[in-house]
Amino acid sequence: MNAIDRLVLLFSKLPGIGKKSAGRLAYYILDADPSFAQNLAHELASLHGAIKRCSVCGSFTEDDPCAICTDTHRDTSILCVVERAQDVRVIEESREFQGRFHVLGGLIAPLEGIHPGDLTIGPLMNRVRTGGIREVILAMNPTIEGDTTALYIQKILKDLAVEVTRLASGLPVGGELEYADRLTLSRSFRGRVKL
Amino acid sequence: MNAIDRLVLLFSKLPGIGKKSAGRLAYYILDADPSFAQNLAHELASLHGAIKRCSVCGSFTEDDPCAICTDTHRDTSILCVVERAQDVRVIEESREFQGRFHVLGGLIAPLEGIHPGDLTIGPLMNRVRTGGIREVILAMNPTIEGDTTALYIQKILKDLAVEVTRLASGLPVGGELEYADRLTLSRSFRGRVKL
Repeated sequence: MNAIDRLVLLFSKLPGIGKKSAGRLAYYILDADPSFAQNLAHELASLHGAIKRCSVCGSFTEDDPCAICTDTHRDTSILCVVERAQDVRVIEESREFQGRFHVLGGLIAPLEGIHPGDLTIGPLMNRVRTGGIREVILAMNPTIEGDTTALYIQKILKDLAVEVTRLASGLPVGGELEYADRLTLSRSFRGRVKL
Repeated sequence: MNAIDRLVLLFSKLPGIGKKSAGRLAYYILDADPSFAQNLAHELASLHGAIKRCSVCGSFTEDDPCAICTDTHRDTSILCVVERAQDVRVIEESREFQGRFHVLGGLIAPLEGIHPGDLTIGPLMNRVRTGGIREVILAMNPTIEGDTTALYIQKILKDLAVEVTRLASGLPVGGELEYADRLTLSRSFRGRVKL
């Protein structure tokens, strides 16, 4: 196996990159200025050394605690609970949320062997108990695992003096009724709002 | 800009990778075993040192001349002319062709400043003149630039004792008439074959 084939094989392990796309990427890099390959190699080689988990919220960061957890301009009384660190990025880019985050590190999925103890639910409880938190927003994906996890967290937070909310689920903006699946449509009915 | 953002920026320069996909790739690599990032970094760093252009056909190779040019089991009397080195890979994977290749390094596109002199048309002429070649198959894409380049090469090879052919163009196998664009349909009529 030559150097191109090895690179294609590695690229094809990335999510959403098939064998053809992997080939296209490898040849693009071969055709491009060699400095591009060098820069990419350098960033990849130093990535795991530069990035760690924030010890407070669990998101990826260069400094611990992360810039969000140490930002005094943010609302410390609202906590947004997400499945993965990349969800923090997506929500930050939307600029819709000014509180802090808590990364679960997964969703409860008994069939895949992921139980509540595998997630950062203990640390979440501690943050809620000690941190003066007024509201916990559950921002897991609206999937079976997301719903299960949200239900579980809702239950264990029930006796604490904190409001627990969940992101609205329904028709995507710009989407059409015609193309919505049955479950999404069902949710959009159940979650209908008074005008 | 932190290490993740720099990696996302580099990934988003790759063809077919938007900002969202680039983010997904970066976080996948962060979540994966660090050895994956290290392996990818290593392959990228050594890529341009390991791979060169074959001095005969112009395709990418670790050894010069390449494995195809030195393979004595292949038909040396047929030359397949392609635009880019990656086209060699695509054709090789189809196992449809047992001759040798010639990589042009581009297509004639006067508006983009690419003229015949910028391509390996001189070396192609030399190969045809000296190499006992019976047939030259023009395998450029069926685009305006591909057609222009094919026409140009056909003209300059006219006086040499060599047959010049072009890959058939028409409806893709498995495709439907209904979805074919007008030009493809027009080509499939002009190139219709007797049954």
